[in-house]
Amino acid sequence: MLRNRLIDAASRMKPILCGAQSLRSLSQGAPSKLTTIEVDDKSGIATLSMNQPPVNTLTMELMHDLIDSINQIESNKSRGLILTSSNDRVFSAGLDLNELLNPEVERFRLFWTRFQDLWLALHLCGIPTAAAINGHAPAAGCVLATACEYRVMLPDLSIGIHATRFSFVISKWMMHSYQSVLPRRIVERALNQGKLFATQEALEVGLVDEVSSSKEEALSKCAAFVATFDKANPLARSLTKRMCRDPDVRDLLKDRSADLKECVDYVTSPHFQEGLSNHLEGLKNRK
Amino acid sequence: MLRNRLIDAASRMKPILCGAQSLRSLSQGAPSKLTTIEVDDKSGIATLSMNQPPVNTLTMELMHDLIDSINQIESNKSRGLILTSSNDRVFSAGLDLNELLNPEVERFRLFWTRFQDLWLALHLCGIPTAAAINGHAPAAGCVLATACEYRVMLPDLSIGIHATRFSFVISKWMMHSYQSVLPRRIVERALNQGKLFATQEALEVGLVDEVSSSKEEALSKCAAFVATFDKANPLARSLTKRMCRDPDVRDLLKDRSADLKECVDYVTSPHFQEGLSNHLEGLKNRK
Amino acid sequence: MLRNRLIDAASRMKPILCGAQSLRSLSQGAPSKLTTIEVDDKSGIATLSMNQPPVNTLTMELMHDLIDSINQIESNKSRGLILTSSNDRVFSAGLDLNELLNPEVERFRLFWTRFQDLWLALHLCGIPTAAAINGHAPAAGCVLATACEYRVMLPDLSIGIHATRFSFVISKWMMHSYQSVLPRRIVERALNQGKLFATQEALEVGLVDEVSSSKEEALSKCAAFVATFDKANPLARSLTKRMCRDPDVRDLLKDRSADLKECVDYVTSPHFQEGLSNHLEGLKNRK
Repeated sequence: MLRNRLIDAASRMKPILCGAQSLRSLSQGAPSKLTTIEVDDKSGIATLSMNQPPVNTLTMELMHDLIDSINQIESNKSRGLILTSSNDRVFSAGLDLNELLNPEVERFRLFWTRFQDLWLALHLCGIPTAAAINGHAPAAGCVLATACEYRVMLPDLSIGIHATRFSFVISKWMMHSYQSVLPRRIVERALNQGKLFATQEALEVGLVDEVSSSKEEALSKCAAFVATFDKANPLARSLTKRMCRDPDVRDLLKDRSADLKECVDYVTSPHFQEGLSNHLEGLKNRK
Repeated sequence: MLRNRLIDAASRMKPILCGAQSLRSLSQGAPSKLTTIEVDDKSGIATLSMNQPPVNTLTMELMHDLIDSINQIESNKSRGLILTSSNDRVFSAGLDLNELLNPEVERFRLFWTRFQDLWLALHLCGIPTAAAINGHAPAAGCVLATACEYRVMLPDLSIGIHATRFSFVISKWMMHSYQSVLPRRIVERALNQGKLFATQEALEVGLVDEVSSSKEEALSKCAAFVATFDKANPLARSLTKRMCRDPDVRDLLKDRSADLKECVDYVTSPHFQEGLSNHLEGLKNRK
Repeated sequence: MLRNRLIDAASRMKPILCGAQSLRSLSQGAPSKLTTIEVDDKSGIATLSMNQPPVNTLTMELMHDLIDSINQIESNKSRGLILTSSNDRVFSAGLDLNELLNPEVERFRLFWTRFQDLWLALHLCGIPTAAAINGHAPAAGCVLATACEYRVMLPDLSIGIHATRFSFVISKWMMHSYQSVLPRRIVERALNQGKLFATQEALEVGLVDEVSSSKEEALSKCAAFVATFDKANPLARSLTKRMCRDPDVRDLLKDRSADLKECVDYVTSPHFQEGLSNHLEGLKNRK
């Protein structure tokens, strides 16, 4: 006989993972090339590295492989998941802005839905998650980091949701990730400014939990965080994590299509297209 | 073609500003006497000063002029709005308590509705807002300050919602202003105590962001805050601010008449009238 | 003529206290043995001591007496309520886990309902409340402490909701108590870990407000906290406290039976029973 909270958990998982599960079946057998998974035999912790040169831009394909890898790690009963980058300068540069520039609507709908799926997969991952932020983490790179339970960052990097700088208005669920780690006063200001926090500032406001001097040290601090759950029953831990995140997750799940429609409408507006063009032009000129 | 978030923003603005817009048309042509607006030609920032002697009590008229001025500044595409007082000892003494003493119900309904309008106008103002708190800011004076995005205060002043000291029970939306800048634990305690924070205490808990030694310095710190938005696209910034404040605003908008009824019922209760009388008597005796 | 907020308060109290009121009538005349109440004639503050040897386990009977005593103190117009323990090593060891081990369902339903009643009685108590935490406060012991408005703790003790360590998944309203005093980031982590905070750590994160070196000093600091409300009108204070706590209370009240069903289903699941058995076995072996 299945118990209520368990059933509840299972039924809530279904709509979330069905997309991802079908993805997984597609890639079964073939190792993903844009992500790599290394499991430490001794600790049982899986390190998931983003590995899409040059800057781990979240393309349709990288997001597919990330969802696939998260599910694989979760179902293989790893003791924890550490998200990191195989690139030493950039954790992830965020969403592929080319998908936002003069988008073909049907393709953009798939793109945004996949980003929702990735947020849900990471946000609801049943095992402990931590981010070893070994490179810059702007925009969606920061969203991925805040969807984890712990963040260790290397010095002299930047992290933050700077969407307003390229005229973008983030969705509510992305704001909720920010609010889950930062005080409201700081969230509003940082989102409005499009602020990128330097490592030290990020530590001071609580956007990251620790600073480490090397990637190795960051991974080992993340592993130490995973070990803090050793005395907790894994299923009770997983259901408790879900309860804590339930308001944010429910807010997206009850209205995924509305979020999608709103985003499509905004992204295809002349206002946004103009702002994005100017931003991309500015980036080119800086190079 | 208007996009969804834009439409949404526009349609949400309408019911909010219609009251204020009609007010504006009344005062068109005639400069307001209870508020003054100075626009810095170089920075494009508008300074809005409350100027109702002796202590900027929020009367029906001052609230009218404030709403009018906020709308004017916003529609004139100023780069930011700084709220301050032309009185060096008092920022604003809060609501006109004479309107709460044995009120004529119809007039009180107008009074409270106008306070709701003022809160909404300031809370939703599309451009960056900051308060240069150059005098005491008790009760509704504090609510105005917390509805802005940034607060700079002079030393040796007091700020806080001390409603319980004169038997008043504030509305939920006033509490939300407090919660948007302070941790929940501190909000409950301060509201229950009717606490007035000294400048230094206010800085420590985060109720104000900076302390400055003169009004000039406060204005210039506020201007520096407005400048932190220079890299943000103005419309994206405005929509993002609205998203952050949406839960609080929606909570009032969905039930303005219920809030009004509840407030009228409470204010006209013998319990409150007795408490208010005693408070006013105490103030007289102190003089 | 009763005013709206007053009526509202009264009507909301009724369903909450009716269970407790009937309890009170049962025990009328006979002094409770598991709790003692001492009222300081000078300050008017009532000290409520839990007095069930050996470790103030929250049994059906102790919870009955606590609800009864809280209501008695509230209706006797005491100036404040200080919750403490007559045991110098343990404030309260939390719920009686024997009630969770292979429970008879009908009895467990009564047990859980009584815990809900206790949470509501303490959470909504109209007068100022403080906890003098003179011994360990794990699990429900911590929930009682966080339902008070202020916490003073002695050194070298532990406090926290460590439910995941014995496979339990707490209810949302227990999480809300935690969230009312701690930042969200810390709540999620601590609940998932089943963390017990040492006194000094608890002070640093804000789970307790002050540390004192003796029980006497703790009681006197709690009394000083109660005195901070001296300038507040008692009814306005009580209604303001209720407004601050309304979202959490409403969340439970609108769905008490669903919370009960969910909890019964979880507690009677083989998964939980196995985890609890192992935990109790471990405790025995430690002795």
